[in-house]
Parts: sequence; C-alpha cells; structure tokens
Amino acid sequence: MMIARVVGNLVATRKNVKLEGSKLLLVQPLGLDGTDRGATVLAIDSVDAGVGDRVLLVQDGKAAQQALGKGTAAVDAAVVGVIDAVETVP
Amino acid sequence: MMIARVVGNLVATRKNVKLEGSKLLLVQPLGLDGTDRGATVLAIDSVDAGVGDRVLLVQDGKAAQQALGKGTAAVDAAVVGVIDAVETVP
Amino acid sequence: MMIARVVGNLVATRKNVKLEGSKLLLVQPLGLDGTDRGATVLAIDSVDAGVGDRVLLVQDGKAAQQALGKGTAAVDAAVVGVIDAVETVP
Amino acid sequence: MMIARVVGNLVATRKNVKLEGSKLLLVQPLGLDGTDRGATVLAIDSVDAGVGDRVLLVQDGKAAQQALGKGTAAVDAAVVGVIDAVETVP
Amino acid sequence: MMIARVVGNLVATRKNVKLEGSKLLLVQPLGLDGTDRGATVLAIDSVDAGVGDRVLLVQDGKAAQQALGKGTAAVDAAVVGVIDAVETVP
Repeated sequence: MMIARVVGNLVATRKNVKLEGSKLLLVQPLGLDGTDRGATVLAIDSVDAGVGDRVLLVQDGKAAQQALGKGTAAVDAAVVGVIDAVETVP
Repeated sequence: MMIARVVGNLVATRKNVKLEGSKLLLVQPLGLDGTDRGATVLAIDSVDAGVGDRVLLVQDGKAAQQALGKGTAAVDAAVVGVIDAVETVP
Repeated sequence: MMIARVVGNLVATRKNVKLEGSKLLLVQPLGLDGTDRGATVLAIDSVDAGVGDRVLLVQDGKAAQQALGKGTAAVDAAVVGVIDAVETVP
Repeated sequence: MMIARVVGNLVATRKNVKLEGSKLLLVQPLGLDGTDRGATVLAIDSVDAGVGDRVLLVQDGKAAQQALGKGTAAVDAAVVGVIDAVETVP
Repeated sequence: MMIARVVGNLVATRKNVKLEGSKLLLVQPLGLDGTDRGATVLAIDSVDAGVGDRVLLVQDGKAAQQALGKGTAAVDAAVVGVIDAVETVP
C-alpha cells in the first residue's frame, strides 16, 4: 500500500457494467515528506474519501475487489483508508 | 487504473483460443496534462472504444478477465470506460 | 520478496472493514549493503515486527492475504518474517 | 499486453514439475517503432511461435496460466498471439 | 520469468507460518550478457538450487504458490528451474 492524496474525480458515463455505481478518485502518491511521488493513479473509493484527504491506496486487482466487497469488479486500485497520522522514528 | 488514449488496433490472426473474439486496442497512457506518459500498452476492449477516445485502462489479469466477463481469458489489461471528464482541484 | 526495515507505523481510524484489526507498518526496502532502495511502502504486519527490525516484505495481493490468513483482506503487501541473517557468497 | 519479438529459447532440464512440457521463449519487448524497449523476458509459448516472430506478450500469473490452459502452472508470462499488423492513426 | 543467479541465502527464524519449511534464496536478475540487471530479490526455492546456479525466476504470487504446490503460501517469487543454456539468434 502507499500513501496518497485525493486530487480529483473522474466522470465516465460509458463504462463496464462491472464498474457501475463505483466512485472513481484521482489520487497522487506521496513521499514521506508529503511531496508528490510518481504519476497520478485512478482508484475506486471504498471509504467515502474526498478531495484533499490523505489516504491509503492499495494497488492489486484481488485486493481492490475485496475492498469493494465484489470479487467480480474490474478494478486494480482502491482507496481503503483515510490516514490520521504517520509515525516515524528518526 | 490509468487514463489513456486509444491510438490504434492490433491484428493477430494466430492467437490463443482464450483471446478469440476479443478486440485488441493499442493505448497510450496519459498524464493529467494530456501528454504521453510511458510506453503504449495493448488492452482488450470491453466498452466499444475507438481510436481517439480517452479511456479508463485497467492493468491486472484478474480485473481484465472480469471486464470481459470471462474468468478464463488470457489477458492482463482492459479498457473499461470512456472518460467524459477529469475534475481536479487546483 | 524484498529485504526492508520497519521505519514507522500508520494510523487510520476510518478504514475499509477488510482492514480492521490489522497493524500497518511503514517499511523501507533495502539494498544488500543496507542502504535505502526506492520509496517506503505500507505493509500489514503478520509477525509482530517493530520499528527497527529488518524484515521480509511480500508485495502481492494474494500472498499478503495468505499472510494474514484472510483470503478476503484488502491488502497488497505484508511483512512475513524478521530477518536474522543474509548470507552472500562474494 | 505488449508487443515483443522472439529472440531465442531457453533450455532448463531441471525445472519445477509445473513447467514440464512447456516451451520457454526469450522475448524482447518492442516500442511502436520496432526498437527494443526494456529488458528481455522469458515467456511460455502457447501459439507455437518461433524466433523472429513479432508476438503478443501477456505478463500476469493468472493470465499466463489461462494461456496454457492450466490453472496450476508456475508461470508469470506467456506468448498468446502472433501479430500480423499494428494499425495506428497518425 | 527472468534469468537470475543465486547469490546467497536468507535466514529468518521468526516468520509467518505460511513460509515455514521453505528455503529462501537471494537472487540477482541478469541481463542476456550475464551482467547484473536491477536489484536482488528474495525467492522461494522449488528446485533445490544452490549459490552460483543460473536459474529461472518467476515473480507473481499465484505462480510462486503453484511452484511450491501450496495455494496458501505467502510468497511472491520462486526459483522454478536451473538454466542449462540460453540460445539466441544473432
């Protein structure tokens, strides 16, 4: 899993029936110092996250399907938590 | 998932029986600003997308199989939506 | 699998029900010489590892689910061992 | 999936029983302009491809297993088609 | 799959029960010319490989589990063959 920030939403009227009813979030993976790390990713929301939230991003088909509670979803990434704090030891 | 643009088609007469009847699209992943991001990828179409469409690309074997509705397909990527809009917060 | 060091913990009160009860570790993959290799990753703990431990990191949804003993967990990485020694031949 | 060219074969007498009877191809992923893209990969053949063929490469454990028609094969990549043409729109 | 060389072993007394009884090898992926390619990886042995052997490395959770003959193993990489020869066409 990675730390990411929700930066937007995606609208797709015509989509696979296996995605219907799912909210698609645009998320930016972050480094520990909060700076952007790599490219943005599209992920299914499973915790009612919103733009600006710092979230827990899972990137694996089987895991993302479990996050949605649908073994048949056509997804490869999901937001599975909203992060309160990251505690590191210096 | 990633944002991508359909840039072509692939023709393969001799292919695995698990791929027969599937349309193969050549897609170019895109950055948020619409510029190319990384190399082109081949993906199975599941939403009748065409060249020029901006699409939602899933890259995972299990997810791509679900997109086709065939748990037995020999695929690792699929086009699962046609994107209407990407809404970002500045 | 990779060698990594536990460098912190993550707190997320609001998370997917498929993650509840799991301890989330922040781990830094390491090179053979013990230096950092790439970015930090979040992983579920399955061996009661703590900050400072050098651990065995698995990065695959199906494998991480098995590490937790829950085929339905929404995870893509897990700490599955605490490393005693790495023996290399020069 | 990716476009690749078959550049050789691999001989391994001592191998896992889950690989027996399979032909192992050495393939070079290609860019759209036909130049090499990244490192060579080893893939199981499922379409009787030969050296010099331009092929369709799938890289995912579940998909490669389906290509072989064996859900129990210990493989993560397979050649699933021989490419006739790639049609791109300029 | 990739070509790799076994360069060491890993000792981990405290590990997940799903890994018990498994030998963990440290392997270095190789390019076609035999030079190192990328970082070392930890893989489960399934063919009794030893340090110095040139091996066939599979990197996928489902494939590695099949290599071990245990669908429940918490692994994402396995050594599945010892390479005799790589035949390339110049």
